[in-house]
Amino acid sequence: MTLEAIRYRSGSLQILNQLLLPHETVYEEIRSVQDGYEAIKSMKVRGAPAIAIVGCLSLSVELRAGAGGDDLVSFIRDSLCHLTSARPTAVNMGRAARELMEFTENESMEKNTEQLRDSVIGWIEEMLERDVNDNKKISNYGAQHILSGVPRDSVTILTHCNTGSLATAGYGTALGVVRSLHTLGRLKRLYCTETRPYNQGARLTAYEAVAEGFPATLITDSMAALTMREKGITAVVVGADRVVANGDTANKVGTYQLAITAKHHGVPFYVAAPSTSCDLSLESGRDIVIEERPPEELTSINGVPVAAPGIEVWNPSFDVTPHQLITGGIITELGVFLPSELQAALTGRLTALSVLHLFTQQARSHTNTVEPGCAFAGTADLRSESGRTAANAGRCVFGCRSDPGSAPRVGPGLRSVLPNVTRPEILTALRDQQKHPAH
Amino acid sequence: MTLEAIRYRSGSLQILNQLLLPHETVYEEIRSVQDGYEAIKSMKVRGAPAIAIVGCLSLSVELRAGAGGDDLVSFIRDSLCHLTSARPTAVNMGRAARELMEFTENESMEKNTEQLRDSVIGWIEEMLERDVNDNKKISNYGAQHILSGVPRDSVTILTHCNTGSLATAGYGTALGVVRSLHTLGRLKRLYCTETRPYNQGARLTAYEAVAEGFPATLITDSMAALTMREKGITAVVVGADRVVANGDTANKVGTYQLAITAKHHGVPFYVAAPSTSCDLSLESGRDIVIEERPPEELTSINGVPVAAPGIEVWNPSFDVTPHQLITGGIITELGVFLPSELQAALTGRLTALSVLHLFTQQARSHTNTVEPGCAFAGTADLRSESGRTAANAGRCVFGCRSDPGSAPRVGPGLRSVLPNVTRPEILTALRDQQKHPAH
Repeated sequence: MTLEAIRYRSGSLQILNQLLLPHETVYEEIRSVQDGYEAIKSMKVRGAPAIAIVGCLSLSVELRAGAGGDDLVSFIRDSLCHLTSARPTAVNMGRAARELMEFTENESMEKNTEQLRDSVIGWIEEMLERDVNDNKKISNYGAQHILSGVPRDSVTILTHCNTGSLATAGYGTALGVVRSLHTLGRLKRLYCTETRPYNQGARLTAYEAVAEGFPATLITDSMAALTMREKGITAVVVGADRVVANGDTANKVGTYQLAITAKHHGVPFYVAAPSTSCDLSLESGRDIVIEERPPEELTSINGVPVAAPGIEVWNPSFDVTPHQLITGGIITELGVFLPSELQAALTGRLTALSVLHLFTQQARSHTNTVEPGCAFAGTADLRSESGRTAANAGRCVFGCRSDPGSAPRVGPGLRSVLPNVTRPEILTALRDQQKHPAH
Repeated sequence: MTLEAIRYRSGSLQILNQLLLPHETVYEEIRSVQDGYEAIKSMKVRGAPAIAIVGCLSLSVELRAGAGGDDLVSFIRDSLCHLTSARPTAVNMGRAARELMEFTENESMEKNTEQLRDSVIGWIEEMLERDVNDNKKISNYGAQHILSGVPRDSVTILTHCNTGSLATAGYGTALGVVRSLHTLGRLKRLYCTETRPYNQGARLTAYEAVAEGFPATLITDSMAALTMREKGITAVVVGADRVVANGDTANKVGTYQLAITAKHHGVPFYVAAPSTSCDLSLESGRDIVIEERPPEELTSINGVPVAAPGIEVWNPSFDVTPHQLITGGIITELGVFLPSELQAALTGRLTALSVLHLFTQQARSHTNTVEPGCAFAGTADLRSESGRTAANAGRCVFGCRSDPGSAPRVGPGLRSVLPNVTRPEILTALRDQQKHPAH
């Protein structure tokens, strides 16, 4: 049972008030755009993906209640402007607003008011569903990738900040990976850092861990190295604010230090993020500006002063982890990629070899979860890159057909990864690989 | 002007009440052993060296006021037992009590009550003076060693926890090095970590920095890596709870992670500690047991809950930094040593080459501070290990004679390093080195 931070049932929206966490669990009804605006502004809901979802859902709720009258386009535009202004730096809300407005304007040319109302509500509900599904894919790919290194053991994961149900549309990214491992019965223990200065780890990740029944232990940020040495950490998994073209990753401050520490101990370091957090317009992390936040986050806790008066403070809110330190991989809803593979994977400029790589990896996930009807369930070792394996892997991913003799089919899963690669090209790559397995 | 945490003037003792820091600066009079006991037990004074000094000084104050009557030995024994029981885990108080009791018993055989009273008071006052002087030597050696790498620039130091006047008899160890750099006008900036979970950095180091006027900035523990990358850290300097024979060092939790991070950035990492903190009875850090403290240190701050109820907590109070990561050196009152040199330096089993090494290093400190009357003031490059330089360096350390032609003299500074090496042996080593400068 996954903790629900956002409860949406057609026309009804409730959110978990995060201001009262971790001490009180209170859901609040959101009945209008104004309710949504206030929940975002007062930080009852936080985390860029969650803000965008709650904002849009509050519009959906009001639309379903009949708001907007005859000038639906203006109502939607005004609502989206208002919602975006609640936390202007939360980029996801801005992007969702632009996309939804474009969709609305296009639809309005062909549809009457009631048809338009239905399609906008449909778009928003699909957005929620897609985000949650993407997180589930991330979680599954990440869990399988980590488990592929330790075929029989249960694993111990270290994470930073909060990347769970409370920060996303649902399920979570890095914490989603942990959730999947727990669901598979393979999570030995989660170590979560308290994540100073805003304590998202101690307040939110610890709350989710307790709520979900994960075996979990809270540590200070400075104990990560000792934890890696003493507690047998299998992998570090963190989220991302932004991943740029070369794989450099901006995330909550402390991530860079964790990555250095993981490298020192030979512990694989993973970043889990939807492809929408990947910004290929920036070449490297040097192009990312580090935002600084107020000193008070360090000098007081819940309004109680904790530092010497008069001391200067540096409070960068995130840091950039160079791609060389992301040794496990970048986990997206499209698969797990090395930083060097990311750009090609997201733009469809994959080589024949990368395609087969990806088939193998995706098929491995399928077989590990033993999906019924998949020709590949139970195959012993998919890490081999022989043509036969790759072809089967491809077939499996293409549609999970149970007939091993049938020709590979390009299913929606892989097609989304390879927008610029046609089915005949993929089939050619597979046939080449079968003929020359050494390549 | 150094912040005085302990104010002692013959027969009068005041301590800075650390329970009220950083928000109030209040000195309290200690008039008796019972006052001393209560100050230690209630943690108005903390830090193992400071506890030992305050305990012994409280006895000195009461002795000077005439306490003890005719059976002075019993009074002293009872007082020391009482003081040691206030915080039994603070090892320095126990060691001071044993040494003082042995001294008292020996003296009592030859002296009458009033003579004994005077010698015990003298012993305690010398202990204070010696501890402060040792810290000043540590601070000077450390500062010179760091500056020798950057002959003209001012330096930026990162430290962890509190190792200043508030934790020691005075002046401090790692923070004493910072103090020396500031006094020399060479401190560009100090970065201090807040040092979770007990916040000694935010509360105490930041307080000392503000009080002393150091240019200083508070960061969270997780920002150290970013600070090294963005702010040009010259060196990391930390204190030590215990340094063992191979140089492995137990210190406040987070030190190990800082050392890894410093190594990754090529930043020299120093440990500053008096030789009394070096425990040669343990071969390596593996022999050190890691003490764990209550979960409440992480889950609440000043009594206010800050973490999700029900979360498990791991709270080791210190960690062990392997000697390989102590790349700058171990700064003691006897000089700065590589971890591999420490044992020989402390036991006097130095080779001829190590002796010359040490001469050079100590002479470098002297010339940098341009001590008048020192033959070596102004010599350009003492890092050369030619016999001539070493001989001069030795001569300088042996007594700072201004006559360059005179034979080297073994002065008290070096003699304390080399308890098992006689003057003729040192002279032979120097002559050998002069004859065979290549060795």
